[in-house]
Amino acid sequence: MVKKELKLHALVAPAETVVVSAYDEDGRADACTLAFYMVSSHIPPCVTIAINATQRRKTLKSILERKAFVIGFPSVHQVKEADYLGVESGYDTDKLKDVGLTTSEARIVHAPVINEMLLSLECEVVHTVTVGSHMQITGEVKNILADEAILNDSGKVVLEKLQPLIYDEEQVRYLGIGKKVGDAFRTGVAVKKSIAGRK
Amino acid sequence: MVKKELKLHALVAPAETVVVSAYDEDGRADACTLAFYMVSSHIPPCVTIAINATQRRKTLKSILERKAFVIGFPSVHQVKEADYLGVESGYDTDKLKDVGLTTSEARIVHAPVINEMLLSLECEVVHTVTVGSHMQITGEVKNILADEAILNDSGKVVLEKLQPLIYDEEQVRYLGIGKKVGDAFRTGVAVKKSIAGRK
Repeated sequence: MVKKELKLHALVAPAETVVVSAYDEDGRADACTLAFYMVSSHIPPCVTIAINATQRRKTLKSILERKAFVIGFPSVHQVKEADYLGVESGYDTDKLKDVGLTTSEARIVHAPVINEMLLSLECEVVHTVTVGSHMQITGEVKNILADEAILNDSGKVVLEKLQPLIYDEEQVRYLGIGKKVGDAFRTGVAVKKSIAGRK
Repeated sequence: MVKKELKLHALVAPAETVVVSAYDEDGRADACTLAFYMVSSHIPPCVTIAINATQRRKTLKSILERKAFVIGFPSVHQVKEADYLGVESGYDTDKLKDVGLTTSEARIVHAPVINEMLLSLECEVVHTVTVGSHMQITGEVKNILADEAILNDSGKVVLEKLQPLIYDEEQVRYLGIGKKVGDAFRTGVAVKKSIAGRK
């Protein structure tokens, strides 16, 4: 296999696309789309996002003022809405209204839930740090709000029903999720047993 | 749409699966699989991972000692290897050898590249913080190593060739990526123009 060194760049592929929402100083809902997102703690459950801090970002300002935000998971059916929330600025227009999205105040944190998102995480800011061009914001998840339609009988989220949006900056596009290719933990445990048998 | 509040937990779905590798104090290569990973800065390119800091994690110890690590992207064909590196401990066995993976020293940072990974990012630790159960480690990407087979003519990574592994903790499984559902930026800009036309 011939290895090649690529031009240095932020290789964003693949990454989960999320919509982050927060109230501004006037109580209006801001939202922006980003793909710099990860789960960052199991106990308590936390998520971390990174937002460009070198540019004028209205949602970033609102998150820092309110110390709260909501993570919404857009589905592949909301690709137009999600992409628009990523290219337009909240300083210039009411982005959510422009694309027909509505909000309700979250139950636990003071931030807006986008009603049309099938899955939302209510988060309280617990840590921030700026590294490079972006500010990393860690939020403790205080509530998880899911549409009944995306849950199985055990109350777990079913990705085939959520149909989350995967971002691929290498090809500047969005993808859906694919088929199951293996079980987590069971696959590795089987390998472990087979290796123990060989020793 | 009926919304339901779920039992609080770390909702890891979907997330990119990566293999993190580092040299231990004896110069041996450690590696572990995780799905708490994101790109965290464009300029300079940085990535952030979160590793459980409440448990004995050999790779975490090695990363902190060496201040360097490599992010490898396993493909769906390496699901057994990747899952094994996530369930077994480096204190008990040479995990990489167990599953036939080999390493070479990275060119820029002092960390091992797993030769069989089609895409690797050489990273230098620039920030760490522990929030909740996990330590968040931000690394500046110093080099990107890709197999020629996964690149297009412009030198960009093609996900259909990389075939990255998506982790879904809700259903405890791995998925592949799906089909393209839209263009990034172009989709949003079209919506923007159509809204401007209506105003």
